[in-house]
Amino acid sequence: MSRRTFLQSGLAATAAAAAAPALAATKPAASYTGAEIDERLASGRGLDGLTKADLPTPALLLDLDAFEANVARLRDHTRAAGIALRPHAKTHKCPEIARRQLAAGALGICVATIREAEAMAAAGITGLLITSELAGPEKIRRLLRLAARQPDTMAVTDSLEHAQQLDAAAAAAGQKLNVFLDIDPGSRRTGVTAGEPAKQLARAIMRLPHLALRGVHCYSGASAHVVGFDARRTHSHAAMTPAIATFRDLRAEGLPLEILSGGSTGTYNIDPELKAMTELQCGSYVFMDVDYRRIGGRGGALYDDFASALTVLATVISRNEPKRATIDAGLKAFATDKRFGPDAKDLPGLKYSWGGDEHGILDLAAAPRDVRLGERLEFIVPHCDPNVNLYDRLYCLRGDKVEAVWPVARGYA
Amino acid sequence: MSRRTFLQSGLAATAAAAAAPALAATKPAASYTGAEIDERLASGRGLDGLTKADLPTPALLLDLDAFEANVARLRDHTRAAGIALRPHAKTHKCPEIARRQLAAGALGICVATIREAEAMAAAGITGLLITSELAGPEKIRRLLRLAARQPDTMAVTDSLEHAQQLDAAAAAAGQKLNVFLDIDPGSRRTGVTAGEPAKQLARAIMRLPHLALRGVHCYSGASAHVVGFDARRTHSHAAMTPAIATFRDLRAEGLPLEILSGGSTGTYNIDPELKAMTELQCGSYVFMDVDYRRIGGRGGALYDDFASALTVLATVISRNEPKRATIDAGLKAFATDKRFGPDAKDLPGLKYSWGGDEHGILDLAAAPRDVRLGERLEFIVPHCDPNVNLYDRLYCLRGDKVEAVWPVARGYA
Repeated sequence: MSRRTFLQSGLAATAAAAAAPALAATKPAASYTGAEIDERLASGRGLDGLTKADLPTPALLLDLDAFEANVARLRDHTRAAGIALRPHAKTHKCPEIARRQLAAGALGICVATIREAEAMAAAGITGLLITSELAGPEKIRRLLRLAARQPDTMAVTDSLEHAQQLDAAAAAAGQKLNVFLDIDPGSRRTGVTAGEPAKQLARAIMRLPHLALRGVHCYSGASAHVVGFDARRTHSHAAMTPAIATFRDLRAEGLPLEILSGGSTGTYNIDPELKAMTELQCGSYVFMDVDYRRIGGRGGALYDDFASALTVLATVISRNEPKRATIDAGLKAFATDKRFGPDAKDLPGLKYSWGGDEHGILDLAAAPRDVRLGERLEFIVPHCDPNVNLYDRLYCLRGDKVEAVWPVARGYA
Repeated sequence: MSRRTFLQSGLAATAAAAAAPALAATKPAASYTGAEIDERLASGRGLDGLTKADLPTPALLLDLDAFEANVARLRDHTRAAGIALRPHAKTHKCPEIARRQLAAGALGICVATIREAEAMAAAGITGLLITSELAGPEKIRRLLRLAARQPDTMAVTDSLEHAQQLDAAAAAAGQKLNVFLDIDPGSRRTGVTAGEPAKQLARAIMRLPHLALRGVHCYSGASAHVVGFDARRTHSHAAMTPAIATFRDLRAEGLPLEILSGGSTGTYNIDPELKAMTELQCGSYVFMDVDYRRIGGRGGALYDDFASALTVLATVISRNEPKRATIDAGLKAFATDKRFGPDAKDLPGLKYSWGGDEHGILDLAAAPRDVRLGERLEFIVPHCDPNVNLYDRLYCLRGDKVEAVWPVARGYA
């Protein structure tokens, strides 16, 4: 059942009028469902004064002031550092955010999956670099279809077998496909080993007639979250140095490599020091999360170079003990792969712990004030990328006012 | 951008014909995208011989033989045990599965959220018990709207303040709302304490004119995954006994409590021993997962009373080391809150480890055979409920043939 079907079923209209007086007595907010908000927008009625208090929970909120400041800050930084920016959309999966990143000077957008690439392309986003190998007939078919429409699309490859498959498919489709040599930064996830193995692969790719070798991709995800600025710098330099040497050697050999792409929000002010990478592919800087805040910045233990712009709005649903409350946001509302959960945005000292798939437990012992049954609280997400992937919409707030609703191309399609 | 918009953009049509020959050479499968499959179904063309090999990855697969056997097995068990069944749809969020559970004799369906309740109601599912407190004006408005359409809908409450809010809203809407007393099984998540606090609340609810107290809800999520059958039995009996005593005392006082609902897939053959609960609310039995398989059954260390019916289909995307491969399924494809990841379905000994948001790492050292670049592998999900919530569709397989595609009412709306 789609949202539209649900609304058309007439359920939306039946008892709303009858229920309204009771709610008016409690709170004058309109309190829409997400489907009703979609319907308002689809029918051209606009958001008409919608505020945070009207939103259903759990809801994913974007603080536009913080988001815009983050976009401007990385733009200014990369300009000053003399490095280009191709931000990673795996973080946000949101064409509207990609548009704003391009408007702020980004020369393209990175994506992790063919689904993200298709969503961005359909929204008119160009300069796509797909940073993970697309293998198997289904993915390669979709890649070539996309590249036929947007010839500046770039894919990565890390083995001769894979490159040959891309070349054969491109040949059959009568296309020439842009590829990057994907070099392993030492994490053994994807990528060919730097040095001789990478050079041999690069030379082999040069002999494949339907591939155009454009650059080197080397993303050290393991460096991004190293705690402590100096330790992170050491880790990232060690991870990137072999790829940089390979890139330089291959250019010295005459291979037409133009781009060396890598870097993360954790290393945005570390990687440019190497004076070798041509572009950064930071993603999380637009949102930030608990995980990034704790890695430490150049100046101290809290990494606050970028502002926390992404939160989940939740409701207190049970309040049976003096110092404990339960909210309607658990593992289906907050994604995690670490032990820590979300941080309360405006209540320092309030401690969240996981309460299962649908619930979170709040420990109020050290919170600055009590919370009420039915009250709504905002939480900074633990890990922004998979957290965004749980939601279909970003509610974009200016203060408490909902200024826009941006669709998220989440999941797989 | 919706899937429809994406398809209408014309991208779907452009290069598909051109790319086809190369793919035909590699594999004759049609290899559709999820959006193309949706489009086929929407246009009435049907699935037309679609097989597992045609599906995009990552994809969520349901083995229909295993699923149907699971539904039949719990039906037979509850009939033999003389206990009713109101299966929990938080696991599947899929109206079609709820329909099949009702067809197999379930007397209704449990849901955890108002969004799930609305999705089920829109599909004609009745007998809904919403097992988590709905608090705050937005949720209460939606609850009353639903109950106006389906007066047999039941909500839970665990405090006088909450019950009074429900009563006031029902009064203003001119409705009488069915409620359950939610009793805490000791996990301090939701629920009033059994014994005197619960009895006082029950008596207070009886004085609220727009609420009809129908039963007691007591779900011990903490019992469900206790490892070892005897330990689990001890845990569940201890958790349920106070609620059962409270239920009996209140009935002895003359309160019109008809239903005592609780139980999980972990305790389906434990709770009926107590001869007190009137219905079970098992959810995971339809799918099973790695987490449930390891809790141990009555007969041994593997809990295999129900078959593993839910898998994720993934593709090998990098193959650069002899005993190691990378697949396109990480934290956005498999949900976890525990350390363990998914289990390979057909390759015992193959070990999965997390490789970030988009990747999984396969250790092949103990696997029975090698895997190829581009090959597709199936994995039993770590934890079924939040895993289903990552996907929009269940591809339902009979052997390798795709027999149906069932929408999942995932996320929040």
